[in-house]
Amino acid sequence: MPASPIRKLVPYAEAAKKRGTKVYHLNIGQPDIETPKMVLDAVRNSNFKVLEYSHSAGNESYRKKLVQYYASVGIDVNSDQIIITTGGSEAIQFGFLACLDAGDEVIIPEPFYANYNGFAVAAGINVVPVTSSIENGFALPPIADFEAKIGPKTKAIIICNPNNPTGYLYSKEEMEQLKALILKYDLYLFSDEAYREFCYEGKHTSALHLTGVDNHVVIMDTISKRYSACGGRIGAFVCKNAALIGSVMKFAQARLSPPSFAQIAGEAAIDLPADYFDIAKAEYKARRDLLVKRLNAMDGVFCPNPGGAFYAIAKLPIDDADTFCQWLLESFSDNGSTVMLAPASGFYGTPGLGKQEVRIAYVLNLNDINSSMDCLEKALKAYPNKTN
Amino acid sequence: MPASPIRKLVPYAEAAKKRGTKVYHLNIGQPDIETPKMVLDAVRNSNFKVLEYSHSAGNESYRKKLVQYYASVGIDVNSDQIIITTGGSEAIQFGFLACLDAGDEVIIPEPFYANYNGFAVAAGINVVPVTSSIENGFALPPIADFEAKIGPKTKAIIICNPNNPTGYLYSKEEMEQLKALILKYDLYLFSDEAYREFCYEGKHTSALHLTGVDNHVVIMDTISKRYSACGGRIGAFVCKNAALIGSVMKFAQARLSPPSFAQIAGEAAIDLPADYFDIAKAEYKARRDLLVKRLNAMDGVFCPNPGGAFYAIAKLPIDDADTFCQWLLESFSDNGSTVMLAPASGFYGTPGLGKQEVRIAYVLNLNDINSSMDCLEKALKAYPNKTN
Repeated sequence: MPASPIRKLVPYAEAAKKRGTKVYHLNIGQPDIETPKMVLDAVRNSNFKVLEYSHSAGNESYRKKLVQYYASVGIDVNSDQIIITTGGSEAIQFGFLACLDAGDEVIIPEPFYANYNGFAVAAGINVVPVTSSIENGFALPPIADFEAKIGPKTKAIIICNPNNPTGYLYSKEEMEQLKALILKYDLYLFSDEAYREFCYEGKHTSALHLTGVDNHVVIMDTISKRYSACGGRIGAFVCKNAALIGSVMKFAQARLSPPSFAQIAGEAAIDLPADYFDIAKAEYKARRDLLVKRLNAMDGVFCPNPGGAFYAIAKLPIDDADTFCQWLLESFSDNGSTVMLAPASGFYGTPGLGKQEVRIAYVLNLNDINSSMDCLEKALKAYPNKTN
Repeated sequence: MPASPIRKLVPYAEAAKKRGTKVYHLNIGQPDIETPKMVLDAVRNSNFKVLEYSHSAGNESYRKKLVQYYASVGIDVNSDQIIITTGGSEAIQFGFLACLDAGDEVIIPEPFYANYNGFAVAAGINVVPVTSSIENGFALPPIADFEAKIGPKTKAIIICNPNNPTGYLYSKEEMEQLKALILKYDLYLFSDEAYREFCYEGKHTSALHLTGVDNHVVIMDTISKRYSACGGRIGAFVCKNAALIGSVMKFAQARLSPPSFAQIAGEAAIDLPADYFDIAKAEYKARRDLLVKRLNAMDGVFCPNPGGAFYAIAKLPIDDADTFCQWLLESFSDNGSTVMLAPASGFYGTPGLGKQEVRIAYVLNLNDINSSMDCLEKALKAYPNKTN
């Protein structure tokens, strides 16, 4: 079981803070944006007397509300096609457990969300990476590259759209290519759409917008990023394949129920005013624009412009991002501050890739992004093992 | 993946309710006792602005409070030896994933909590049952029976103490026998202590009261039953083996964090007045006394007196408890009421065992227990496939 690349530097950050150094956290997708007050108030104003188990698929009232939400983003599902999960994490676990046997393979464009690895280890399945490239902004790799990896044990492909860690937004054409591929080889398409609302260039194509693949497509969803409600641990497994929903329900019943408090929060969130995402999106877009501009202005740094989510991957003029990120926390500070980044190597399945790359989560306000980029710029000058 | 024996009759219960029949739910361990108001109020009065991820091991403030709680029940641990989990369910999953490889075996006295099966399937491990008997109240089976099942793939033994589904409370002598066994064969002892506070005869012996087995013992814990807070989905993995805690942390990091709202509830619960459990225990004990008396007064029924938890297993004069429990929901009612029980067959790993047994959760008030027993008594008279 690999350690989380996002969290493995935590002890160094804690040590830095104990020394009095301010750490700009660009390493983890914990948004600083406030959880909408009405979402938190729904929990605070709850008046039940017994904190009971919910239905294993989640409260029916919440699933019915989610049907409205999905309709609003062009996804036509009913409440029996939704299982509420403990975070998007559990939706991914359920997909692995219900669709793949031990020893089976799932193909994932790399770099990818590192915890897919952890869930694969837990389920006894193997991740087969197909490499995407920073040069074209981490677009979908050529379909021929997928086909070269498909074998008798391949059961599924995962995409994260828009992508964590790259920020890439897959186009309608790319989604159609994936559709043809899963039909040709009879595979599942797992679509992690945690960042659906956060698209800055072009329109989001959900895997459930694709037609004629109802038995093949699963959406792994979560309220974590959508409403800045990461701690709620509420997600959803959404799928039109009734037999698969039936299998997943057995795993859902084994763990009894998803968390009750945050289901109340999730249900309330569906009634947020229509402009809620406009405001959050405008904020994230402004941060992205600033971050990408600042990064590309630094000597030897390249950062493609991500179309969605709130991550960017940048290539830095350094020997090794793992060493560099640890050095930032252990040995560097500027005006009492330093920056915590996630080395990208942990997001690649192929050993040796991404050694000069870091993932940056733009979850800080514009001022802090500016200050953190000042800090990074100085750090890159001070770092002893530069490559140019 | 087997369906939950506790939940598989749910569609029949829903149909009965749609027909207007009142269903006494004795099938599931959802206590009717109110969650302490101060526990719910802690969540309602929370005033954070962002519902953030917590530490993957849970909030440090909560883990420190839990150290106090464990000290109060004679368990000496520090906050680094506690990982907060998403219900006791996740603590069990973590134990399976971190201590056993695919194909390994865990020995469990049967009948046992059926979801151990589900978690074993998910982890790719095999459950090896050792049969306990209703004749001696489901006491620990002879150690020789365990030894007969131990092989090269055996890595752990699970006990649930006091036991779900039998209500049996393992004695200090039985715990010492298990200690000798795990030392002799170098096994883990997983002790599910969800019902620690609910002991009516004798004293609870925690697996962490045993000395000299710090590297072998794991407690799987939960606030669900202790504070009638099942929907919170908060539990704990407690262990003095630092290497094992390190392994479990990797799985904990992969799923990011346990639910934030209910951690607040769990932390507040530690400050409940000292007599809180006295009141709850007195209530459960009165229910148990009534239930066991009523059952044993029925023709052909035998129910041993359970020492703890809030379950009893009764042997009924019927052909097949699965058929009977379904019949109760589909074909029987008395004064517009019926009873929902859990067939015990689903709690046995050995096929064919427990066919005349049912598990009864005494989670209803005394009046309802009385009424439900009236109903069951009549049902047993009316049931067409009796054995005596």
